[in-house]
Amino acid sequence: MSQRVRLLIEYDGRPFYGWQRQDDQPTVQGALEDACAMLDGAPVLVQGAGRTDAGVHATGQVAHIDLLKPRPIRKIADALNFHLRPKPVAVLKAEEVDQNFHARFSATGRAYRYIIVNRRADLTVDKGLVWRVPQQLDTDAMQAAARHLIGEHDFSTFRDAECQAASPVKTLDTLEVHRMAGRVEITATARSFLHRQVRSIVGSLVEVGRGVRDPGWMKEILEACERSACGPVAPPDGLYLERVMYEDHPWGQATGK
Amino acid sequence: MSQRVRLLIEYDGRPFYGWQRQDDQPTVQGALEDACAMLDGAPVLVQGAGRTDAGVHATGQVAHIDLLKPRPIRKIADALNFHLRPKPVAVLKAEEVDQNFHARFSATGRAYRYIIVNRRADLTVDKGLVWRVPQQLDTDAMQAAARHLIGEHDFSTFRDAECQAASPVKTLDTLEVHRMAGRVEITATARSFLHRQVRSIVGSLVEVGRGVRDPGWMKEILEACERSACGPVAPPDGLYLERVMYEDHPWGQATGK
Repeated sequence: MSQRVRLLIEYDGRPFYGWQRQDDQPTVQGALEDACAMLDGAPVLVQGAGRTDAGVHATGQVAHIDLLKPRPIRKIADALNFHLRPKPVAVLKAEEVDQNFHARFSATGRAYRYIIVNRRADLTVDKGLVWRVPQQLDTDAMQAAARHLIGEHDFSTFRDAECQAASPVKTLDTLEVHRMAGRVEITATARSFLHRQVRSIVGSLVEVGRGVRDPGWMKEILEACERSACGPVAPPDGLYLERVMYEDHPWGQATGK
Repeated sequence: MSQRVRLLIEYDGRPFYGWQRQDDQPTVQGALEDACAMLDGAPVLVQGAGRTDAGVHATGQVAHIDLLKPRPIRKIADALNFHLRPKPVAVLKAEEVDQNFHARFSATGRAYRYIIVNRRADLTVDKGLVWRVPQQLDTDAMQAAARHLIGEHDFSTFRDAECQAASPVKTLDTLEVHRMAGRVEITATARSFLHRQVRSIVGSLVEVGRGVRDPGWMKEILEACERSACGPVAPPDGLYLERVMYEDHPWGQATGK
């Protein structure tokens, strides 16, 4: 009987071509599967809760694996981290779960955070880890615009052409805009998201924040249900998959920016 | 008459051999002097408030320059940032000051922040930007140990052999230890610091936090006035020069981790 293990994972998205394994490019799933294979002595499928795009980071990605050779659970994170070095992927926690647990299908919610540094000067320490927007952002206008998106809607406007979801209808539970000194942070929670939905929303919110559009424009483009109505898509740099929620396993977030 | 300009500067210390110009290595002062020379068309001395070591970061370094060709002050930060690209050094603010202002000698205080990520798992997004300490740190014990250092003391124990200060006596105004989830942050303020004083103090505080030493040990090693009594010096990764204070120019901090 194999051992099913849930992993809480953090990664720097910069050197990777996204989460999903590709034969010829470094990916986060690929790095984890290689490390798991080193540990277990056989190929291991790493099933993630969500796919992140190239350059997108995670402080709370969740995945599950099945190990053929069961081992003490308290040693698994250290062993995987050993095999992951020096790649910027780390297993923060490992926990034994029953065979019914599935990182993707058991998830009841996902939380993303998007970090903007709102200043004219170029980035230094945060380069690749935040989006710099030079024009002063009106966060009250952004929050007013965000309110139009909360709830169940057809999010076709905010959906990438390559999105494989069966339906464009999703329920956005929360979408909040906060300013902390020179930073603007946008948090979004939903059961699940469409491909590039958060970055599409953030890009449009920034159009409102810059004063190029009114908050009511967000309602218009949502109701257009048309990809071409969307504002520019925000870059991956500022996006973090922060938390994945499970009904029977309320797994908190370990760290964050 | 030249124009004296004060600059608020942020940088990622990783690619630099510290602040101070060296003929054969990239340094922060060197990067800024090159950019200033491009702007002014002649060599410019960039006088910093404090020297930081290789790998140490700044979110609030201050320097002054004298420009031979005066220009509108509101254009100077953008112009310098243009010439600094793609180096991870940015001018956050530029302000005209009178000829009596001196970034180093007019400074009445410096504030440093040291960031520790207290966890077993390797670093990912924060690599090079924080110090990872795997053993659980007792921050109450660290704060108790820190109290012994506050005030005026001979800090010979916490002074690098290469320190050029005339006297080892300094007054530490504040030294605080805070835990925020998986992070431990140590902030220190003083009129001025000895070479590697903050990293020497942090390294010794971590010995107490790990339970290797009691808080009272900090008093013992301080009173020893002996470099060899000091704990291991903390790495540069987690150290940020956060703010420089001036009597007549209360310059706030623009951004921070």
